[in-house]
Amino acid sequence: MTKAPQIFARLRWQGEIHFALKENDAFRLITAAPYADWKTANTLVPAGQAQLLAPVVPSKIVAVGLNYRSHALEMGMALPEEPLLFLKPPTALADPAQDIVWPPASARVDFEGELALVIGKLAKNISPQNAMDHVLGFTLANDITARDLQKKDGQWTRAKGFDGFCPLGPVIVTTMDWDCFEFQTLVNGACVQAGRLSDLIFPLPEIVSFVSQVMTLLPGDVIITGTPPGIGALNAGDKVQVAAEQIGVLENRIIR
Amino acid sequence: MTKAPQIFARLRWQGEIHFALKENDAFRLITAAPYADWKTANTLVPAGQAQLLAPVVPSKIVAVGLNYRSHALEMGMALPEEPLLFLKPPTALADPAQDIVWPPASARVDFEGELALVIGKLAKNISPQNAMDHVLGFTLANDITARDLQKKDGQWTRAKGFDGFCPLGPVIVTTMDWDCFEFQTLVNGACVQAGRLSDLIFPLPEIVSFVSQVMTLLPGDVIITGTPPGIGALNAGDKVQVAAEQIGVLENRIIR
Repeated sequence: MTKAPQIFARLRWQGEIHFALKENDAFRLITAAPYADWKTANTLVPAGQAQLLAPVVPSKIVAVGLNYRSHALEMGMALPEEPLLFLKPPTALADPAQDIVWPPASARVDFEGELALVIGKLAKNISPQNAMDHVLGFTLANDITARDLQKKDGQWTRAKGFDGFCPLGPVIVTTMDWDCFEFQTLVNGACVQAGRLSDLIFPLPEIVSFVSQVMTLLPGDVIITGTPPGIGALNAGDKVQVAAEQIGVLENRIIR
Repeated sequence: MTKAPQIFARLRWQGEIHFALKENDAFRLITAAPYADWKTANTLVPAGQAQLLAPVVPSKIVAVGLNYRSHALEMGMALPEEPLLFLKPPTALADPAQDIVWPPASARVDFEGELALVIGKLAKNISPQNAMDHVLGFTLANDITARDLQKKDGQWTRAKGFDGFCPLGPVIVTTMDWDCFEFQTLVNGACVQAGRLSDLIFPLPEIVSFVSQVMTLLPGDVIITGTPPGIGALNAGDKVQVAAEQIGVLENRIIR
């Protein structure tokens, strides 16, 4: 039986930003980040009074490209022999419900729903066997991509690095039932992507281990683990959701 | 006449880390980062007692690829129409005099000497005309690159993202005489690269403006501006220096 998960959030309440632990339909404030030495506070905030924010502020966002076989095929790209890494800048973070602003430099902006890992303990040169001990939990991300600029530049940094191009949230869930886990991307309510961890080319422990051989992962750092097939373009005004039963719904609108 | 430059450092002294302002042959401690609201403190540290560190701890390190015509040619790559951006993770930072550890995954590790800009004021969607008002000053960087992995991966993140692959320093100089500015890379004392700003495909104000259209630049962020021709491989034990008369010498050794 899986240990009952803890659910962590970062939220704005009465004008201040707090970390919190979900308690039924409310959020119990905690005294530090969930990857730090925190204690519960006395304050309990009703869910309706809390504005959820990206659940962490990472020092880096590491992304894995082409980690689902069928997505590599739809992009016309060879399957990678090793995880293909890229970075999104921390300034790309967007909160749940935050509008994403269409950058004038692009004519095509795509959604890419992804499962995200949040690092709980510093990880350097760790093995796949120990990797998940360094993971605090799981959340959802949207690896928004200016597809035209991705092709034009070759390097993906600009295409995936615009302000707001990494919605993250809504909460961090510390344990999951891996066998059943799946997530969906929905555009204006229609399901366009479905991801199952069994389809990953590189499973989560291998990803964490691989990244940790390159760059030290710090508490709060985020790894987004690749997008399943079904990518497509957004139109201004579209509502895009990344959803998983265990985590919730990360919803954003794209505006011009 | 150019305004006399201020020279900022970050240093370890008596076990503590401080920001400081150079004063003749000593460092005057300051109360906050040079891009924050700082004041001078009473303490004056003789240069010989200070261990210089990377002069800032950026939230992101943005790099411009192929920004010297002859370097693009030696790489067999087309000249970019726009600045080609990539990111190095903050964990890649290395201090002056810090040894760089050769990553076992690579068989070829190259130096790439570069001029680095340090952002002084938040910059978003700024014009080239105003760009340099957002720059605190200039330092030197070595964009260490696992050349074999750069070619293998296509994306440059892993090849340029290993811990220690971004030596930075030794100090930040706030103004420079642009017409005369040049820097060199030396390996074991022999000059292997010489860069002049007049050879840049995209001049500094255009780079800052371009990046700021993509991602908001925060105070302390670093932009490394491209490497001149002459790149080459390092051998374990080599001493590599990036040097400019106005800034000083950034020296590191690569070890296995």
